[in-house]
Amino acid sequence: VAKRLEKFKTTIFTQMSMLAIKHGAINLGQGFPNFDGPDFVKEAAIQAIKDGKNQYARGYGVPDFNNAIAARFKKDTGLVIDPEKEVTVTSGCTEAIAATMLGLINPGDEVILFAPFYDSYEATLSMAGAKVKCITLRPPDFAVPIDELKSTISKNTRAILINTPHNPTGKMFTREELNTIASLCIENDVLVFTDEVYDKLAFEMDHISMASLPGMYERTVTMNSLGKTFSLTGWKIGWAIAPPHLAWGVRQAHSFLTFATSTPMQYAATVALQAPDSYFAELKRDYMAKKAILVQGLKDVGFKVFPSSGTYFVVVDHTPFGLENDIAFCEYLIKEVGVVAIPTSVFYLNPDDGKNLVRFTFCKDEETLRSAVERMKEKL
Amino acid sequence: VAKRLEKFKTTIFTQMSMLAIKHGAINLGQGFPNFDGPDFVKEAAIQAIKDGKNQYARGYGVPDFNNAIAARFKKDTGLVIDPEKEVTVTSGCTEAIAATMLGLINPGDEVILFAPFYDSYEATLSMAGAKVKCITLRPPDFAVPIDELKSTISKNTRAILINTPHNPTGKMFTREELNTIASLCIENDVLVFTDEVYDKLAFEMDHISMASLPGMYERTVTMNSLGKTFSLTGWKIGWAIAPPHLAWGVRQAHSFLTFATSTPMQYAATVALQAPDSYFAELKRDYMAKKAILVQGLKDVGFKVFPSSGTYFVVVDHTPFGLENDIAFCEYLIKEVGVVAIPTSVFYLNPDDGKNLVRFTFCKDEETLRSAVERMKEKL
Ligand SMILES: CSCCC(=O)C(=O)O
Ligand SMILES: CSCCC(=O)C(=O)O
Repeated sequence: VAKRLEKFKTTIFTQMSMLAIKHGAINLGQGFPNFDGPDFVKEAAIQAIKDGKNQYARGYGVPDFNNAIAARFKKDTGLVIDPEKEVTVTSGCTEAIAATMLGLINPGDEVILFAPFYDSYEATLSMAGAKVKCITLRPPDFAVPIDELKSTISKNTRAILINTPHNPTGKMFTREELNTIASLCIENDVLVFTDEVYDKLAFEMDHISMASLPGMYERTVTMNSLGKTFSLTGWKIGWAIAPPHLAWGVRQAHSFLTFATSTPMQYAATVALQAPDSYFAELKRDYMAKKAILVQGLKDVGFKVFPSSGTYFVVVDHTPFGLENDIAFCEYLIKEVGVVAIPTSVFYLNPDDGKNLVRFTFCKDEETLRSAVERMKEKL
Repeated sequence: VAKRLEKFKTTIFTQMSMLAIKHGAINLGQGFPNFDGPDFVKEAAIQAIKDGKNQYARGYGVPDFNNAIAARFKKDTGLVIDPEKEVTVTSGCTEAIAATMLGLINPGDEVILFAPFYDSYEATLSMAGAKVKCITLRPPDFAVPIDELKSTISKNTRAILINTPHNPTGKMFTREELNTIASLCIENDVLVFTDEVYDKLAFEMDHISMASLPGMYERTVTMNSLGKTFSLTGWKIGWAIAPPHLAWGVRQAHSFLTFATSTPMQYAATVALQAPDSYFAELKRDYMAKKAILVQGLKDVGFKVFPSSGTYFVVVDHTPFGLENDIAFCEYLIKEVGVVAIPTSVFYLNPDDGKNLVRFTFCKDEETLRSAVERMKEKL
């Protein structure tokens, strides 16, 4: 294995999902629904396949889908963008992240991450030869330590990566935090890469796109995907929105990472993004019900549950149960209780920072959530 | 744009396909069929979507598909491999290439390419910080200059990239060439990365997988995809086969480039790879008929046509028509004749090496091929 990837392990998500199968455990680990995506989107995919939309898409996306992404972005943020120059379709948001790092970051550039963070951020920055500067968000509220951020920004800082709503904590960056980060970026000529795949799963406050703040669009790459919003995580359709001078870098990297993204699925995704408001409202209502079941259940079991404002994740402190760290706790939970959670130490540069915390997902049907809670009540 | 990608332009394939649409030209440029993939594979995709196979696949592939890839590889090469440890499913062969380079090549490593070459090889090597050493294959037969190869291998050589059948020339590496390269690799402890996406389009001789030569499997990454063999270039399903110590690097890079590949399409691809021998025989027969039409037509038009043994491409010398180089010729061909070809200078480190050559594809229905020939006869 090349040195750039030596320190990374098998992604925890696959590992835990495989353990779930092996032990017959209820999988509240990796973030994929155990229910299916909506029929109207599946039907659109089937139609596209039948219609022979099966050859290479244009590298940066089929025109209809680029248009639908721009229209959705306008609806969500008020910003009018050029679908031909500012939208790049990718094979999931994971590819958008890789293309952004490899397309825009030079060796030696510093990029600031907030820990805990999704593991691909660090790995793709390593591929790009960047220096990772990490700022830890701490419970209970995972607020941005502004002074630490200020002192971390240097003349070598090229970008700050923001993920809101935030995996794993469910934190949503507040308007105040985003405004402060925005002024620091403008002042120091720093870019923002923002991963907003959970934007439609915003429960306790409205989602705010960094790109919509004054002066920010021109320095922001906004990444999103179909998977979470449409319960189709396996389709791997994502995109990056950026002003032309940044989109160019993303597109160049994308050209050589995957060249293009599944054509029939892009046609289906086009239909998905045109869903009526009622679709998004229902999604949110369903997830709020699921969240209520899991959060109350976890409290009843005896966890300290940290407030989650968005995403389909919630983080808890497992220390009341006396296991030595998050990994040991998750092992116990799988083997003795039959439930899978994700240890959070994998989301930190310094694993110790996550040793008290584990993440549960509530993207499962209500019965599954209830059974998981029952198992924990019985056996923890 | 990051420095690693500065020198690369918009991939020629997209560019020419867009020009084809703009000018209403017949597109014999980018290699995608203008006919549809087989119904049994499309039906399998539709069934998978209906059956709810729509959530994240296992990172390195859904078990059924890994098994089908291993079974196909055994059928093709006689080699028995472990589908769990040696097969990595990727989002097209383009991603397999990127993951191989980023997962196995360190900055400063030398990698040998044979020009002309598919543009992503050089770009992904640049991402990996490799030094590209280029050996040019020259018409009429594009034979490997063995002495030049010997003197190019150094103690820093980490890998040789082979693409057989070869895009753009249609050259197939002979058993003798492969044997010589193999002994050089074993002698000098060099890896082989082999792109074999056109392996089922081998017309004039049998395809030989480098991995099947004695002592080579353990040092070879074999890359392939669904697109060309099943006329489904838009599905973006590829894979890399490698011994565990190399597969590990590929998988690590893949984890962070795209994480996983479309789940329903992997189920469809499983069915595809189990196609009866008759499917592959018919595919070959169809393509031989198409090839005969195009090659005879190009000769009649007055091109010097170089022999193509495999792929769905053929390279010609355009100089009888008096245009100054391949780009000028292709522009003239689009605008004045209404046919799109691919200039080959983009496939060379030194563009001048390709200035006399252009590539045509015959992955189009026979009527389209005949019309293109008619247009050229009339207007060239
Ligand atoms: C590829 S796993 C992606 C993110 C996610 O679903 C998770 O954090 O569980
Ligand atoms: C992404 S284009 C891939 C290769 C091909 O089809 C071509 O060379 O035209």
